[in-house]
Amino acid sequence: MSQPRAPRQLHLGAFLQATGHHVAGWRHPGAQADAGQNFAHYARLARRAEAARFDAVFLADGVAIRGMSDATLPRTARAATFEPLTLLSALAAVTERIGLVATVSTTYNEPFHVARKFASLDHLSGGRAGWNVVTSWSDAEARNFNLEHHPEHADRYARAEEFVDVVNGLWDSWEDDALLYDKDSGLHFDSGKLHALEHRGAHFQVRGPLNVARPPQGHPVVVQAGSSEAGQELAARTAEVIFTAQQSLADAQAFYSGLKARLARYGRTPDQLKILPGVFPVVGRSEAEAQEKFEALQALIHPSVGLALLSQNLGGVDLSGYPLDGPLPDDLPEPNGAKSRFQLVTGLARRESLTIRQLYLRVATARGHWSIHGTPASIADQLQAWFEGGAADGFNIMPPWLPGGLDDFIDLVLPELRRRGLFREEYEGRTLREHLGLARPVHPAVRQRAAA
Amino acid sequence: MSQPRAPRQLHLGAFLQATGHHVAGWRHPGAQADAGQNFAHYARLARRAEAARFDAVFLADGVAIRGMSDATLPRTARAATFEPLTLLSALAAVTERIGLVATVSTTYNEPFHVARKFASLDHLSGGRAGWNVVTSWSDAEARNFNLEHHPEHADRYARAEEFVDVVNGLWDSWEDDALLYDKDSGLHFDSGKLHALEHRGAHFQVRGPLNVARPPQGHPVVVQAGSSEAGQELAARTAEVIFTAQQSLADAQAFYSGLKARLARYGRTPDQLKILPGVFPVVGRSEAEAQEKFEALQALIHPSVGLALLSQNLGGVDLSGYPLDGPLPDDLPEPNGAKSRFQLVTGLARRESLTIRQLYLRVATARGHWSIHGTPASIADQLQAWFEGGAADGFNIMPPWLPGGLDDFIDLVLPELRRRGLFREEYEGRTLREHLGLARPVHPAVRQRAAA
Repeated sequence: MSQPRAPRQLHLGAFLQATGHHVAGWRHPGAQADAGQNFAHYARLARRAEAARFDAVFLADGVAIRGMSDATLPRTARAATFEPLTLLSALAAVTERIGLVATVSTTYNEPFHVARKFASLDHLSGGRAGWNVVTSWSDAEARNFNLEHHPEHADRYARAEEFVDVVNGLWDSWEDDALLYDKDSGLHFDSGKLHALEHRGAHFQVRGPLNVARPPQGHPVVVQAGSSEAGQELAARTAEVIFTAQQSLADAQAFYSGLKARLARYGRTPDQLKILPGVFPVVGRSEAEAQEKFEALQALIHPSVGLALLSQNLGGVDLSGYPLDGPLPDDLPEPNGAKSRFQLVTGLARRESLTIRQLYLRVATARGHWSIHGTPASIADQLQAWFEGGAADGFNIMPPWLPGGLDDFIDLVLPELRRRGLFREEYEGRTLREHLGLARPVHPAVRQRAAA
Repeated sequence: MSQPRAPRQLHLGAFLQATGHHVAGWRHPGAQADAGQNFAHYARLARRAEAARFDAVFLADGVAIRGMSDATLPRTARAATFEPLTLLSALAAVTERIGLVATVSTTYNEPFHVARKFASLDHLSGGRAGWNVVTSWSDAEARNFNLEHHPEHADRYARAEEFVDVVNGLWDSWEDDALLYDKDSGLHFDSGKLHALEHRGAHFQVRGPLNVARPPQGHPVVVQAGSSEAGQELAARTAEVIFTAQQSLADAQAFYSGLKARLARYGRTPDQLKILPGVFPVVGRSEAEAQEKFEALQALIHPSVGLALLSQNLGGVDLSGYPLDGPLPDDLPEPNGAKSRFQLVTGLARRESLTIRQLYLRVATARGHWSIHGTPASIADQLQAWFEGGAADGFNIMPPWLPGGLDDFIDLVLPELRRRGLFREEYEGRTLREHLGLARPVHPAVRQRAAA
């Protein structure tokens, strides 16, 4: 008789964005407003997420202050914060089991450095590192790296493709058992198990080998977030976790089934890629309390910040001359780009007769991610519907403010998910790869020898 | 009446080279042979050095496996180890007071990344970060970064000059009091205290500002090790600590007085640059015990490793056909480069009638650094002579093997130095800059406002 198969359970990331994901979350009375300069804050959050058995903490990144010209920048808490690889390395030393995922751009880095730092983090943490691959998006970043403008989408993805391949190759520089440490013979390693990469491509020439031993996980887990055609193809070929922004069950189902279907082209099975939509949860003990909590956060949005966000959604139009509590003007010019977004937002305003203030409050939350407000039961219902409805393998939880927003999710929603058998009581494994149910990559030389 | 001035005391670095600095140190029965993959080992060393009140731990770096073609590479323990910035960030979380100095090359990096990572480490550690600026030296490194050959010395130093200036400029992106965290007004920071760098130079175009707040130390401490003319000029203009290899008191005095004299050209005073020669100590309770310890290490050098090191010292000549216990052949070809080293080593062999084995044992220790063997009192005598004789402001201690070589220095030599009043009993400050007696850089905007 075969073993009963363990029930499929959610994978959860804790997306730790300094003061939280709501644009005004840092103004919440309980928020750690200096989070970007406060390591103890991050250490508490990571330990809390670990005690709650999250699969991983997740850190975003950009290599510039974006929106320097925006007068509302000083009203947000995003301009100054820790660099994610140094922060995660420090968090590795104060945690034991939780995965550690950092975002690093392929557009403004070299693959040798990236392979090396994640391999080193994987050793430091005993196999808990993950790399969220992004290609960046702003001219502000280009201007910190000797360029005037951010490279075009196709160029960025061509570079990213090659970059990920080089990094994977460098992680295989050493076979798992190459290091001997044999004091008697005097051989520290077996030179037959050290391999130069000798990569010569369009973007990179990298000889290798990496000067870090093969990571405990074989390869740190590769995460991606791109949703474009090129992004989805890169993900289908190389990613093991997808972090995605989806607003409705139907859209999320379409994305999920479409991306999983692409895997077969690369000889991969659906369970080799875990899809985790972002979720921005506002949790109350009652629906009314959840609504109150949400409105209290919304009330903290300064009108200039709300107007700036609304303006971005309308292609950059200047709304400063109109009364906040009056209607959106009828004669706004349609922008050249992002027309569908413009139509969506102006359509919403007309349909529901919203004032400018009401409208910016509607567009100001969750940066395009799924925002759910409610009781633990109603939130669990929705997460379960996505999980069981073929829309998600789990979620990346984006607390509106920190630390309290994470506490609310852990204290109120997780017990409900556990009652339903949807989330682990204890870690089953030790590495991030094991938490996610992803196989450890066999070294190519071992595979070749086995095939010979 | 003025306060009595505190007596000048030594500054000490603990140079933690995985298994230790002796080429065969990893084979010592007590050595942690897997040190390069063992974070607990580094955590114990850093805590031990902190408990002993060292100014800093110091990590070297290279961005390649150097000497891949060398058949003796597998007999050394240097090919695979942690990346230093990730390792130091993790060590920051398990220590509280000791400085954390990592080597990073200006030849194969971008200043925005380097400024950002050290600023982040400085925040994580509460002001304990230091950057050892190097320009790298091997083609092996070039070949991991899209080049065939390592750039020429002059090119590397021109790039390094501009690189250090950009990093210093980025560290001043934010004024110290720019972040307000003012929940009531909704202003997270004062935009008048955030400054773009707008750097446009021969090697770099970097707009800035840095997306990390001003480091607790103002600037992390800048360390350098270059001894060439260009290296000394760079150091005189920008460095705050010099790590140097000196073999004799006379040479060390000449280097010390020469470098300190250069500072005036840049409007700096001698106390703004601390000079720390490397010291490779073998400590015994008696002279005989020290000699036995040293010989036990030397006996662990495999003849092929000894021959390879000797061959390097003789310009690459092949000695494999000659008996180890016979003399150096008379007819060795003089190399094109490094003639003085060739004459030094062959002269030593003739003068003392050394066999090939005896000769390689003489050249195989301490990689050009000062090697001292003896009792705690004799070692303290020598360190004191250099410190009081105008040759050093302190030393970077290079234990032959780890962890025991560091323990020996702490348990045996430090008490003797303390008895003589030459080393601190307790930390006087909290930051690396305070340990070293270096002033915190005033922000340029503050200086300008004060001058106006």
